[in-house]
Amino acid sequence: IESEPMLVLEAKDYLHLFYREQSLPEAQLQERLVEIKHDYRRSLTYWQTEDELIYGAKVAWRNSTRCIGRIFWESLRVRDLRHLTTAEEIFAAIVDHIQQATNGGNIRSTISIFAPNSPGQPGIRIWNPLLIRYAGYLQANGAIVGDPAQAELTKICQHFGWQGQGTQFDVLPLIIQMPRQKPQLFELPPSAVMEVPITHPDYEWFAELGLKWHALPAVSDWRLEIGGISYSCAPFNGWYMSAEIGARNFGDVQRYNLLPAIAQRMGLNTRSKLSLWQDWALIELNRAVLHSFTTCGVTIVDHHTASAQFMRHWHREAEAGRIVPADWGRIVPPLSASTTEVFHQEMQNICLKPNFFPLPVPWK
Amino acid sequence: IESEPMLVLEAKDYLHLFYREQSLPEAQLQERLVEIKHDYRRSLTYWQTEDELIYGAKVAWRNSTRCIGRIFWESLRVRDLRHLTTAEEIFAAIVDHIQQATNGGNIRSTISIFAPNSPGQPGIRIWNPLLIRYAGYLQANGAIVGDPAQAELTKICQHFGWQGQGTQFDVLPLIIQMPRQKPQLFELPPSAVMEVPITHPDYEWFAELGLKWHALPAVSDWRLEIGGISYSCAPFNGWYMSAEIGARNFGDVQRYNLLPAIAQRMGLNTRSKLSLWQDWALIELNRAVLHSFTTCGVTIVDHHTASAQFMRHWHREAEAGRIVPADWGRIVPPLSASTTEVFHQEMQNICLKPNFFPLPVPWK
Ligand code: HEM
Ligand code: HEM
Repeated sequence: IESEPMLVLEAKDYLHLFYREQSLPEAQLQERLVEIKHDYRRSLTYWQTEDELIYGAKVAWRNSTRCIGRIFWESLRVRDLRHLTTAEEIFAAIVDHIQQATNGGNIRSTISIFAPNSPGQPGIRIWNPLLIRYAGYLQANGAIVGDPAQAELTKICQHFGWQGQGTQFDVLPLIIQMPRQKPQLFELPPSAVMEVPITHPDYEWFAELGLKWHALPAVSDWRLEIGGISYSCAPFNGWYMSAEIGARNFGDVQRYNLLPAIAQRMGLNTRSKLSLWQDWALIELNRAVLHSFTTCGVTIVDHHTASAQFMRHWHREAEAGRIVPADWGRIVPPLSASTTEVFHQEMQNICLKPNFFPLPVPWK
Repeated sequence: IESEPMLVLEAKDYLHLFYREQSLPEAQLQERLVEIKHDYRRSLTYWQTEDELIYGAKVAWRNSTRCIGRIFWESLRVRDLRHLTTAEEIFAAIVDHIQQATNGGNIRSTISIFAPNSPGQPGIRIWNPLLIRYAGYLQANGAIVGDPAQAELTKICQHFGWQGQGTQFDVLPLIIQMPRQKPQLFELPPSAVMEVPITHPDYEWFAELGLKWHALPAVSDWRLEIGGISYSCAPFNGWYMSAEIGARNFGDVQRYNLLPAIAQRMGLNTRSKLSLWQDWALIELNRAVLHSFTTCGVTIVDHHTASAQFMRHWHREAEAGRIVPADWGRIVPPLSASTTEVFHQEMQNICLKPNFFPLPVPWK
């Protein structure tokens, strides 16, 4: 027997899953596989049907071991944009994605899937790790204004001629690169980028810190793989879990590093570790994020609710005869971990497909 | 060539480490190995020197992947008690261990090593997971008074004729089992068990909750393995990291589950998850534990300091040409994780020897 090429094996695996879970007729599956093998022989690839694509993206989310929000995997909105051929068209579609997904604050989980990678060729790339992210400007004294995590990308944007305002919260332009072409810069229209000013339910001075964050978390540097086909440009979004902003983006020492300033305003004793001032400031920051998003009518989930939803998903999946592959260290929230049910759950970190895979930094 | 038995290989491995790290002469190492092989042929085991034992216990601590307190590994006090032959003698030595290690609150990291397991025989066992732990009494209505984690052991103690007071904090008796003998019960003298009443630096009502905890965390259900020799009875203690009591023992839903009561006393809105009442109560509980131990002059470390110490240990070990094998999920504290440096450190979970290994529950 001739051994089958990897792509055909991957296609078979996925098609079996797709036909089984969607209860489609076996005869049709066999026909479809014949077709795929035929296409493969001619072109070393094959073109997925829209249904295959849509279900594949949902299952890729279901298999995302780091994601605590997977209970909603079936309701993912999938935009089939494989026909777009220029960076300009892709940019316009992304602006559209941002607006439709933001939906005035009532956020809808959405993925936009652009043309698949051709065999042996680089794929379309978005250089930004997320569609919306704030610039980080390195100062002469080594300090950074804005988000330190974006300092390198900010420099690259400047190198390409972009000039930011220099505030703590300048939305970076998008860099889109078509296969074997130069990357192109596009400014997001400010009207498309919804932002939430951060205020606190009890502390009035909190607003004076001048903090804000964008409503939409849309990841753009992961490759979607379905049935052996790679989509290196397939940005997706859910809504925020408050800890992503309140604990990590604002709290991390390597990010906005706001805990010392907040603790000081709160009047905590920052000289003694026993005062647990970092822990306190962390909670107030998270309360502020939750309060602000809720007040502005922007979808957000706190880490307790997210944990409970994940456990409900866990039990639902068990009923469907599936395990929930999960990366414990990523699923467990970065604050008050042992108060959440996920902390006490043993997990199996297994890589199933379809799935999302991190892409290397494109400029290196 | 004849292949060497596992025990001899393990002995060789450890002896090489011991002679290298202690800068002992190579010739002496070869002599010692000849001796060990000779002993092995005669008895299928060998007797470690006191120096081998002492250094082995220290390295076992250094290799404990779950332990955040390893910076102090070299200062472990090792008690060589291999000559004791009866449960009564062992019990007396354990009372001694508790008193010397507690040291009036100025806690000293200590291990007591009792006779090694004979080849092919069960070893000495302490049935308690820790030398000091509170009973958990199952009530007719399914509720538990005391520590739910000890409900099963409490029932066994009662089965052996023990009767507790029925409070939330009754120290369990020790169950010691010599190889192939019946387990024996011993009551710890109350004067040996130092306890800390829990009060709060700001909230007077906290004392009214009537909480306390024991000063000494001494693990007694892990097997120490050095050079292929197993010590199934080798209880060891450090001092507490506050989160072990304030987050886990008091906070876990499956343990004392105190967060709802504390949040209520604090006047937090326990109906809304957005109030983050669990997170708040958790911090106050941890502040109370730190405050109480410090006030009573009992050694304790907060999770921020412990994390900083672990990272110092990490860099020191790197200088000594060693990695620090570590289990990220256990090292990272159960609260305010992302504010600690260890959260941001990638770790390798590798099993090196000498080491400690968890023992199965003895009554099953
Ligand atoms: C619906 C609301 C959603 C919530 C609350 C949610 C929550 C999260 C959180 C908290 C993380 C960890 C982020 C980090 O560690 O930095 C995460 C990661 C991830 N999620 Fe979700 N998610 C949602 C929707 C989605 C959707 C729609 C997809 C894909 C279709 C997805 C796929 C992933 C992937 C691939 C990761 C790993 C990527 C990374 O770490 O940046 N999630 N999610
Ligand atoms: C000196 C102060 C010490 C501190 C602050 C400390 C801290 C900790 C903490 C927080 C844990 C995790 C406990 C858990 O997850 O339940 C742990 C586990 C552990 N530690 Fe340490 N430790 C200390 C001393 C020691 C000593 C003296 C030894 C052995 C000689 C040791 C060996 C271990 C082992 C084997 C574990 C895993 C056992 C378990 O999870 O119960 N530690 N330590």
